[in-house]
Amino acid sequence: MRIGKTRKRRIEPAAIVKVELNDQKRSYPIYVGENLLEMRADLIKKHIGGETCMIVTNETIAPLYLERLKEALHSSKSDCCDELRIEEVILPDGEEFKTLECLDLIFAQALEKKLDRKTTFIALGGGVIGDMCGFAASAYQRGVNFIQIPTTVMAMVDSSVGGKTGVNHLKGKNMIGAFYQPKAVLIDIATLKTLPEREYNSGIAEVIKYGLIKDKQFFEWIEENSEALLKQNALLDDDENEANKDDDDDDENMKNGQNKVIINAIKKSCENKASVVQLDELESGLNLRATLNLGHTFGHAIETGMGYGEYLHGEAVSIGTAMACDLSVRLGWIDVRLQERTINLFKKFNLPTEVPKKMTPDLFMRLMAVDKKNSNGRMNFILLKGELGSCVFTGDFDQSKLKETLDHFCSTK
Amino acid sequence: MRIGKTRKRRIEPAAIVKVELNDQKRSYPIYVGENLLEMRADLIKKHIGGETCMIVTNETIAPLYLERLKEALHSSKSDCCDELRIEEVILPDGEEFKTLECLDLIFAQALEKKLDRKTTFIALGGGVIGDMCGFAASAYQRGVNFIQIPTTVMAMVDSSVGGKTGVNHLKGKNMIGAFYQPKAVLIDIATLKTLPEREYNSGIAEVIKYGLIKDKQFFEWIEENSEALLKQNALLDDDENEANKDDDDDDENMKNGQNKVIINAIKKSCENKASVVQLDELESGLNLRATLNLGHTFGHAIETGMGYGEYLHGEAVSIGTAMACDLSVRLGWIDVRLQERTINLFKKFNLPTEVPKKMTPDLFMRLMAVDKKNSNGRMNFILLKGELGSCVFTGDFDQSKLKETLDHFCSTK
Repeated sequence: MRIGKTRKRRIEPAAIVKVELNDQKRSYPIYVGENLLEMRADLIKKHIGGETCMIVTNETIAPLYLERLKEALHSSKSDCCDELRIEEVILPDGEEFKTLECLDLIFAQALEKKLDRKTTFIALGGGVIGDMCGFAASAYQRGVNFIQIPTTVMAMVDSSVGGKTGVNHLKGKNMIGAFYQPKAVLIDIATLKTLPEREYNSGIAEVIKYGLIKDKQFFEWIEENSEALLKQNALLDDDENEANKDDDDDDENMKNGQNKVIINAIKKSCENKASVVQLDELESGLNLRATLNLGHTFGHAIETGMGYGEYLHGEAVSIGTAMACDLSVRLGWIDVRLQERTINLFKKFNLPTEVPKKMTPDLFMRLMAVDKKNSNGRMNFILLKGELGSCVFTGDFDQSKLKETLDHFCSTK
Repeated sequence: MRIGKTRKRRIEPAAIVKVELNDQKRSYPIYVGENLLEMRADLIKKHIGGETCMIVTNETIAPLYLERLKEALHSSKSDCCDELRIEEVILPDGEEFKTLECLDLIFAQALEKKLDRKTTFIALGGGVIGDMCGFAASAYQRGVNFIQIPTTVMAMVDSSVGGKTGVNHLKGKNMIGAFYQPKAVLIDIATLKTLPEREYNSGIAEVIKYGLIKDKQFFEWIEENSEALLKQNALLDDDENEANKDDDDDDENMKNGQNKVIINAIKKSCENKASVVQLDELESGLNLRATLNLGHTFGHAIETGMGYGEYLHGEAVSIGTAMACDLSVRLGWIDVRLQERTINLFKKFNLPTEVPKKMTPDLFMRLMAVDKKNSNGRMNFILLKGELGSCVFTGDFDQSKLKETLDHFCSTK
């Protein structure tokens, strides 16, 4: 099947992860594959309800992918809206702009363009864009459709599942937001080619996390494939891809591609996250969903304490996970060997595992006091316990060990 | 049963309206009565989940009721939280402060006081406070509990049912928000004693609306009781109330009170709104919920066009309803007699029914173009059609008549 004027053959997503939620109407698909943005815009176009949409992106991503996406949306066929009007808003790039003020830029543009409540917001970018666009979609006219096209590993494996959206506040990260599910997610690993290596690695920190908290096999697969997962190995360059595309056997081109390592890492991460989110969508009942935040309590404190933008989210999570491992070892809950394996894996991807100089135990305690996972004044943590792939969410442990961990990390600088 | 140190007898709410939603967990009670704020704080205290709450109020209401509410909450008995920590945030008063910037004051205070996601936000004030507090509650840590204590007629009969929360944007009213249901609503008509007459009447515009769109009997009851519903007649002064309270027959004191006219108006309004909201909570499927916006399309344009604060919401709705009646008559959908009865009733409560000078047909058209009820470029209106108590939500009518209505109202100045 050929789409548009240029000769584009229909390629199939390498994987489709279905995020099943209690309410079937809110369940949605995650399409994972290569070159989907340009060649399979129809996959998302069919989820656009009205006759308008607005692409929310940033100054870094816009020059790379905005025009390509607009053209793909215009030229792709879809039953629902052949005359799609596409608006856009381009935000400054960076976690420090994940604020209520920048959110207002999205609202202002949507109102300026007179977009009604049947419109669809499309997030084109990393986690910051996804979180802000999703929150804006949840609040614009009290809720419009929302589609995600994540362009970072972090956004692909974390923000794309679970519907957590929001902005930061000077006094705390992700403190303002909504649970709001996208209608569909389109993951095109070709967009990772333009992702800086440091950001790529930051996303891998979350990939490793899924293994640690609930999937021993996946953790071991990452260990075995860590060399292939390094950015320069995981992504084919364009020429090789072109050669691949010219192969006649379309359906096979993804399966046989050398990109299958990164595709599998993303697919497995999405599946792992989806399986948790499905059981605890609103992070209430079982506290199951909280387990996804391994390393995040320490990590958020580092992000807030150092100022947004100093550490990438995955870098802070990497340090936070090292701290959580340390605390788990001190409590006698895991073997020290697991801590070593974890640190080694982080280091393989150039991820930091030591606390920055500015952070003191007091600053940690003060910043962690406003963590969303706290309840009734008690500080709760996700800690590893038992075999690889097991963790607990608890505030019930020897608090002196927490102090030891903080003192240890804040004195090894 | 005596509560606290002072001699307070247990009084019963004159009415309890249950707002039943699809999801039983989100259904909630509206308690309606007199002196409930001071004497029955336990009714809301039992809905506070955690050990903290934050009262969101404004500079006008705080001096009148904030301390009384705090004392009542502290002294009332409840199973769930005897050691309740009560925080507060006092916002500037007025529709012009219903903005993202002021919303941020609520978030900043909640974070400053380290309130966790088990906290409860309590709205103490009119519609602006209810809408802002509700939206803040929906977004703070992605959602905390929310309780409303409306202190205006408008907030009692409109904001207290249906979970519409939000803030205004320079480019449109209520354009940013969420559907978010309170855990409970406490309506104490004693708080109306301090409400300026103009605001009281503004709320009555919405009361009249319920009769017009779906309750012939209620409309006729309002006509018959309009004299008793005027503020000075509807509310007993304090002395008379005291005499009433000393009556031994507690359960009867409300039923026999002269305040029963305003209580009935509020109860019936809440019941009417609840019956609509239950069928169409998210204003989607049947467009049923949209019918609650009779007069609001014109009215919002007036509010935006004149600048927030110039007209009270009910005043703008009163003018808008007069315009909707006019359009309905021009379309031959209602008898001119119904239009006259409606205008007469508005006038009885000193409500405006003429368009302010500044508004032109062009300005109306431009401002109405961003109305939330529009879809795919079509302007939709709620218009009366048929017998008293019937209305339609439609964009399918002779548009030249809309122009006639606008020309007529904009030239009668």
